[in-house]
Amino acid sequence: MKKGKVDKFTLTVIVENKFGVLARIAGLFSARGFNIHSLAVSETEDPTISCMTIVVIADEKILEQIKKQLNKLIDVVEVIDLTNRQYEERELVLINIKVTSKTKDDIMRVIHTMGAEILDVGKNTITIEETGDTKKINSIIELLRPFGIKEVVRTGKIAIQTEGEKREN
Amino acid sequence: MKKGKVDKFTLTVIVENKFGVLARIAGLFSARGFNIHSLAVSETEDPTISCMTIVVIADEKILEQIKKQLNKLIDVVEVIDLTNRQYEERELVLINIKVTSKTKDDIMRVIHTMGAEILDVGKNTITIEETGDTKKINSIIELLRPFGIKEVVRTGKIAIQTEGEKREN
Repeated sequence: MKKGKVDKFTLTVIVENKFGVLARIAGLFSARGFNIHSLAVSETEDPTISCMTIVVIADEKILEQIKKQLNKLIDVVEVIDLTNRQYEERELVLINIKVTSKTKDDIMRVIHTMGAEILDVGKNTITIEETGDTKKINSIIELLRPFGIKEVVRTGKIAIQTEGEKREN
Repeated sequence: MKKGKVDKFTLTVIVENKFGVLARIAGLFSARGFNIHSLAVSETEDPTISCMTIVVIADEKILEQIKKQLNKLIDVVEVIDLTNRQYEERELVLINIKVTSKTKDDIMRVIHTMGAEILDVGKNTITIEETGDTKKINSIIELLRPFGIKEVVRTGKIAIQTEGEKREN
């Protein structure tokens, strides 16, 4: 990766589950002008610890600044940059698609082809769930768009390190 | 639901995708003393609009205050409270489980029973993905805990309204 190239980077930030920690981290990004693409924060197996997955839009220089600033925050236990590591990433999306008697078969074909799960079939709306990497999620949205998308709710990406050697970039 | 009873409520907050919007919303929760249990924010099918799913810990009175304060923010397009509506909710989790030759079969049995997906099998770690409602996610964590959980990354809950009549509570 060339220095200066703006890209999306995924950071896993382990934080103490204290009141206001999200505001302090979101405030840091906002005050410094760092761009957040998506963010997911939830508890871990230890209720005193939360895990944030933040997808940032930055170049490598800015990414280093973000990591440095995050590490300065007292609530932050660890900042894990998965770049150059072996990891799996997933995202979850729920979609409401407009349906008519004419489009139903075609919509069902897309859902079946993509391996998505149907949550609800109504007279005017089909609700589906899909899990995958960001590319797969974007693909299903594009395939369903011509039928009319009523609502899209995404979690944003989460990522986890897997066993194995470091990838050579 | 009795007034005054503290519970978890899921709010879908549609916001303009403007710089610092997350900091303004997290700051509002922090300044007013509102508790966030989990939060997921990502883009929608319209790149100018983001969707936040916020699970708050509150009683009904506080919930009304939160909704009122959110609606005052200029970035907020709509606040959707799914309580009393028909909806589906899902959460995604990635888990690293400690594995030895002795525990591998038992772990595989739990994964298979729960219908989870295996992402990676290493010498010391198995990485899995599971999607479901919060109860299902909590169940698989509890079932895997005795084997040794190394890492849990959750998205937090997202929810979408489905077609149909209002539920009578």
